[in-house]
Order: sequence, then structure tokens, then C-alpha cells
Amino acid sequence: MKKILNDPRDVVPEALDGLVAASQGRLRLVDGTTAVVRAGEGGGNVALLIGGGSGHEPLFGGFVGEGLADGAACGNVFTAPAPGVILEATRAVDRGEGVLYVYGNYSGDNLSFDAAGELAAAEGIPTESVRVWDDVASAPPDRVEDRRGIAGDLFVIKVAGAVCAVAESLAEAARISRKARDATRSLGVALAAGSIPETGQPTFELAADEIEIGMGLHGEKGVSRGKLRAADPLVEDMLGRIVDDLAARRGDEVCLLVNDLGSTTWMELLIVTRKAHRLLADAGIAVHDTVVGSFCTCQEMAGFSLTLMKLDPELQAYYDAPARSAAYTKA
Amino acid sequence: MKKILNDPRDVVPEALDGLVAASQGRLRLVDGTTAVVRAGEGGGNVALLIGGGSGHEPLFGGFVGEGLADGAACGNVFTAPAPGVILEATRAVDRGEGVLYVYGNYSGDNLSFDAAGELAAAEGIPTESVRVWDDVASAPPDRVEDRRGIAGDLFVIKVAGAVCAVAESLAEAARISRKARDATRSLGVALAAGSIPETGQPTFELAADEIEIGMGLHGEKGVSRGKLRAADPLVEDMLGRIVDDLAARRGDEVCLLVNDLGSTTWMELLIVTRKAHRLLADAGIAVHDTVVGSFCTCQEMAGFSLTLMKLDPELQAYYDAPARSAAYTKA
Repeated sequence: MKKILNDPRDVVPEALDGLVAASQGRLRLVDGTTAVVRAGEGGGNVALLIGGGSGHEPLFGGFVGEGLADGAACGNVFTAPAPGVILEATRAVDRGEGVLYVYGNYSGDNLSFDAAGELAAAEGIPTESVRVWDDVASAPPDRVEDRRGIAGDLFVIKVAGAVCAVAESLAEAARISRKARDATRSLGVALAAGSIPETGQPTFELAADEIEIGMGLHGEKGVSRGKLRAADPLVEDMLGRIVDDLAARRGDEVCLLVNDLGSTTWMELLIVTRKAHRLLADAGIAVHDTVVGSFCTCQEMAGFSLTLMKLDPELQAYYDAPARSAAYTKA
Repeated sequence: MKKILNDPRDVVPEALDGLVAASQGRLRLVDGTTAVVRAGEGGGNVALLIGGGSGHEPLFGGFVGEGLADGAACGNVFTAPAPGVILEATRAVDRGEGVLYVYGNYSGDNLSFDAAGELAAAEGIPTESVRVWDDVASAPPDRVEDRRGIAGDLFVIKVAGAVCAVAESLAEAARISRKARDATRSLGVALAAGSIPETGQPTFELAADEIEIGMGLHGEKGVSRGKLRAADPLVEDMLGRIVDDLAARRGDEVCLLVNDLGSTTWMELLIVTRKAHRLLADAGIAVHDTVVGSFCTCQEMAGFSLTLMKLDPELQAYYDAPARSAAYTKA
């Protein structure tokens, strides 16, 4: 695979340099680390720190900004950030009321954020963790804690950012952010693999006419491999699994995210959006907001994911709050 | 190439259906056409209509919204919209003060918009055209009117949208929008071709280790084909050509767009952004704003383009105005 890189070992620090440059003074690096934080004073008391492996850009650094995260601790490509990076980012974002961690539920990330949280506690900085586990393909409903976090991160970060800006306490911020997490479900489909920058090798193999539903962001096995289908039946299959898992019912209201995994065109995403809206309308489920674009990717993977977040009045109010970052702006 | 489609002949109307669905009531189709317009009353007197061939999503439909375009007339993939579609969109967006057309400088688009403008004039709707010709690779500086329009469309549309919202007259809106156009230069590089949805065929061929600087959005010949290089010297070469053509000098202020042509990752775009900022800083050229993402694509083409718009106080004020659409939001 051809990529526009310098030394492949430098992709993470160089990309973070670029993110800071693009921010026009709104972001800064935590010295000597691969963590990026807001440059000015944040608006809230409780701080929000997100993070995880790199390679899924614009996740996570693209969501640091007003009404969103105060910082992002970034690991190497497809590798959890080290506890030390998370700890330094924790110190940098803390405003005295503690730090909420929101990250995808992967064993490496869990270990790193837990370790950093213990180190932060020893310094008097309380933390709470919200592990995002939105991928319905990765474990059955009775084992949600074994599920992976994928594009649903965006909705949980959106709500958590709005909550942290006004929350009275870390516990309150964690409670509402967990509610957003528990109301969020996603499912992806891969048509072709992305490649790892350091090796140029694809993360998995799919035949020329094959797709895999539920394929993870790093090539983890999905729930169903089959022939490429037309968009409409594919969306019907995928959305049906999400709606069932979420137990979304007539009269419910949801936010919809149609996320490109890397090289799927807006044209295709919009064709998917069209069908998703028709299916939701037929089911009597109202769509409060629709987000279309590249938010959580796996390098140049071809494919997309669908995410629903079921709203209640509390979640809706936080969801609707304005936000501004490199990759997501809500006016 | 695998794509997520239904009948490939329906990609344009289906994608527009999806765009309207995603807008949550903010957009509507002009009945029986492939034109999309704002559903409510726009804010301005002069209306802004953009358009061109489909296949470059989110251009053009993704830029219809508050502070941006009032409508977009969309052709089939890589095909100019028919004059009839443009005329119907013109009628739909006109508020009695005329309609400004902004579109890329391609012979088919020029013919269609000119024909539609004549038909509109016959109905008493005055129009003015601003043809975007930002691609420095496509003709020498003494023949700018032969240059193609590429990602610089975004900056011209951004300024034109802000201008139309407050302009006293169509002539004034056209004057300032032309100034934005004349201050904008772009250059792209392709690493791999995108494919046409109806045929599945790539639009051109590049060897596994080849790149082409200045390649057009439809595979038009560029200015220099060579071996894949590291990001930094590639950006230096490309940005140098843009800065020279724009005659940007120490003390000037610019906006920078780093645009993905389809399947280039944010990680790569940020590495490009980093180098572009360093080069501009070295040249004493201030960057007022930086935009990174997928705005003007050629299906899943791998590659990126760089765009600079040189600001003066008038352009800066319009550039800074808030805007909101499916693909571009400025808060």
C-alpha cells in the first residue's frame, strides 16, 4: 500500500504535530508525550480524557476541543497508550475535580487506563472510567462487558464532553456518560482491509467478492462472512441487529451515525443513510440527528459502521450542546 | 472495486435522498430533479447555487446549508448537471435578488450554467457566474481561465455563502466571490485511482510505486509523474508551486485546506499538515485557519490536495462567518 509518510516509525508524533498545527493554538502536546490537550482553560470542572491506539484517526485526537474532550492520550498504531502517557495527560487536564476517562473496551486500553488511574489516585487526582462497548458483533448481549468499542465512541464522547462542562461532580459525569454508553450500539461491515503504516501489510484478507459483517477495527473476526450484497439488504440486516440489541421500539428516538471505516465514499454512506432512515421510519423510531462521515477508521479499510444512540431527555440535552474540534463540530 | 450500492444507475438520486434524510428537515429535493436546496427561508437576498458532476462527494450537496450554498444542482457521476436541473434549482433558490452560480471550470459545467443563466434571465431572474479555477497544474498562470476547479471550491463557496447572506446586490456578491476565487490556488497528488460506480473501472492507471502531481479529479493528466516520495519533500514541492503561483509573500495571511481525495487517512493528512505549517512559517506566511478532511474527492482515489486562499480583511471577515452543512460546519 502506498502511504504519504516520512519514517513510518514517526507517524504518531508527526500526526499529532499536524493536529496541533491545524488547531491554530487551540491544542498543545503534553511535553515529551503523545498526548494532546486543549491549550486554554477548559469550560468545566470535571475534565474528560479520551484515548487509545492510533491508526483510527480522527479518533481520538480529532475530538479534543470545546464541548468535547479536554485531552487525548494516544498510543502507537493499534496499541494502547502507556500508563505514563495517560498519567501525564491526566495531570495536564485535571482542574481539581477529577478526570473522566472514556475509551474503547480493549484489554490493553483497560490495563493502561486502570494503571494510570491508580497512579493518579496516589497523587490525589480521582478518576472514573467509562469503557465503550458498542460493537454488537463482538459478544452476546449477556456479555456486553466483552464487547469492543468502535464508532459509538463518538456519541459517548459527545455526551461526556457536554456533561463534563457542567457536571457538579465526577460521579455525576460518569453516571450520565455511562448512560450514553449503555444506550449506544454499533455494527460494522468490512469490504477490504486497511494496512499497517509500519509494515504496509493489510490487517486481514477478504476475497474480491466477499464482505464481513462485524469485523473489528483491527481485523477481529466478525459474525458473518458472505458475498457482497446490494446496499439496501445489507443495511436492513445490519440495522436490524442493532435495533434488536438496543431493544429500540416504536416511539423511541435515536441519533444515527453512518461512519466510513476509511475509504468508503460519501456517495455510498448517503445511500446507506437513505435506507437506514427508511427502515427506522417504518419501525416508528424517530431520528433526532444524523451524522455522516469519517470518524472512527481503520486506516484505508473499505466499509462502514452504523451506530444508534437511544435518547432520553437528559441525553438529548447533552447531545444537542455545541461542540467544536478538528473532526467534529456541532453548531 | 467493491462498492456499497444498489443499482449503479441510481447512485445520484439515492445519495441525494440520503443527504436530505440526514439533514433532518433542513434540505429538500427540487421535485423531479437531482438538485437539493435548503428547505426553509435562506438568510440572504442574493441566493447561492453551486453544482457540478457527482462522484466528488461531499462536494457539492454537502455544502448546502446556513452560511453556505442555498442549493446544489447535481449531475450524474463526472457529468455536468443539465441546464434544466440548474434552471429549476435557480427558480427554487431565487428570492428576488438574483442567483450567484459558483462551480468548477469545466467545459460541460460552463455550458450548462451559461445555458441555464440565459433561460433564467428570460424569466426575469438575473444570474452571475463565478468559475473556480484553482488547480495550478492544469494551465500556466497566463491562462488561468483554462484551469480546472478542484478542492478550492470549498473556500470560494465558504466566502460566497457568507457574502450572499448579506450582499446588497448580485453584482457585489459576484465581485467578492471572484476575489476569493482569484486568491485561491490548489494542487493535488494521486497515489491510486478511484473507480467509476457504474463500471467498477479505475479512472486511470498508476504503477505500484508511482505518484502523479497535478492529476485531475477525473484522471486528467498532471504535471509530473514520478516515484513515491517521503511526505516532507512531496509537500515542499507541492506547496512551493502553490506559493509561487499565488505570489504569496512574507507577511501574507492564508487559509490552508488539506483535502483527502478519497482514501487517504487523517494520519497522512496530518503529517502533510505538519510540514505545510513548517514551510509556511519558514516563509513568514501566517496561517489564519486550517481545514483537514474529505471535501472534494474522486471516489476512493488515494492522494490529497493542498489549497491556499490568501486573505485580505474583507475576505477574512466573510471566511470567519459561521456556517453549517452536512460536510462543513464553522462555529
